[in-house]
Amino acid sequence: MTCERYALDDLYVGLRFTSDSQRLDATDIKKFASRFDPQPFHLDEAAAGASIFAGLAASGWQTAAITMRLLVEGGLPIEGGLIGTGAQLSWPRPVRPGDVLTVESEIVKITPSRSRPNRGMVEVRSETRNEKGDLVLTLTSTLMVTGRNGPDATPGDA
Amino acid sequence: MTCERYALDDLYVGLRFTSDSQRLDATDIKKFASRFDPQPFHLDEAAAGASIFAGLAASGWQTAAITMRLLVEGGLPIEGGLIGTGAQLSWPRPVRPGDVLTVESEIVKITPSRSRPNRGMVEVRSETRNEKGDLVLTLTSTLMVTGRNGPDATPGDA
Repeated sequence: MTCERYALDDLYVGLRFTSDSQRLDATDIKKFASRFDPQPFHLDEAAAGASIFAGLAASGWQTAAITMRLLVEGGLPIEGGLIGTGAQLSWPRPVRPGDVLTVESEIVKITPSRSRPNRGMVEVRSETRNEKGDLVLTLTSTLMVTGRNGPDATPGDA
Repeated sequence: MTCERYALDDLYVGLRFTSDSQRLDATDIKKFASRFDPQPFHLDEAAAGASIFAGLAASGWQTAAITMRLLVEGGLPIEGGLIGTGAQLSWPRPVRPGDVLTVESEIVKITPSRSRPNRGMVEVRSETRNEKGDLVLTLTSTLMVTGRNGPDATPGDA
């Protein structure tokens, strides 16, 4: 994992990053679900087995949150941090107990601010896969990124 | 809050639902952030004050996760549960300590499955607001919904 952080000036379309990995187990799945997504197929093996998921599956919001953590911890090393204004997600496959998740990201679009030369909106496509390479989440994020001279305004003012 | 649950047959475009409310405080914000989004503006008042957020702000993924909980707990009473295949999010304003969040949802599109008459994809637009009525999250979700006769296949097979 790199320690370098990329400001707006350093980014270019096609630049790619790979995150560290994180494993989650049945306890993690049930704990997150009990707090944020208390549905039987995320909470209980027997109920999950009888559901459309045919087995315990992580909440899609947990997959998104773990992806965010992996991005924050080096998977998307943006100077000033990851400040998203919007995102598109799809969950093509369930995440299962024991899955080890890794995120690959690519800069897909850079739009400099017209009013603020030191700022831009950056679109990043991230793909989260399990250890078998199965795609479990696609996340296209729109991030507010500042140039080397740092922030110059308040959110929403891009 | 209604106890009634809506199957595919019961839904129509324009049908609206309102969730219960949930308050979050600075401890909740920091706890979620330390687990999933460990960035200074979500973890520490002083660092947040000096950041573009000008004060402690919840991770957008926490806002999404709380929204999901409010939807699961009656804010979107779909028979068989909330099974999303994709979502679009925007975070127009930060969530602050003490905010009380409520979600209003509207059915915006219903697409019956061509191959499986007992299933359809339903698009739902949800808006999460704080107690002042400020919009903090828009979430457009695509859900797999089954008819009154229950599920008939596996995920991804709609």
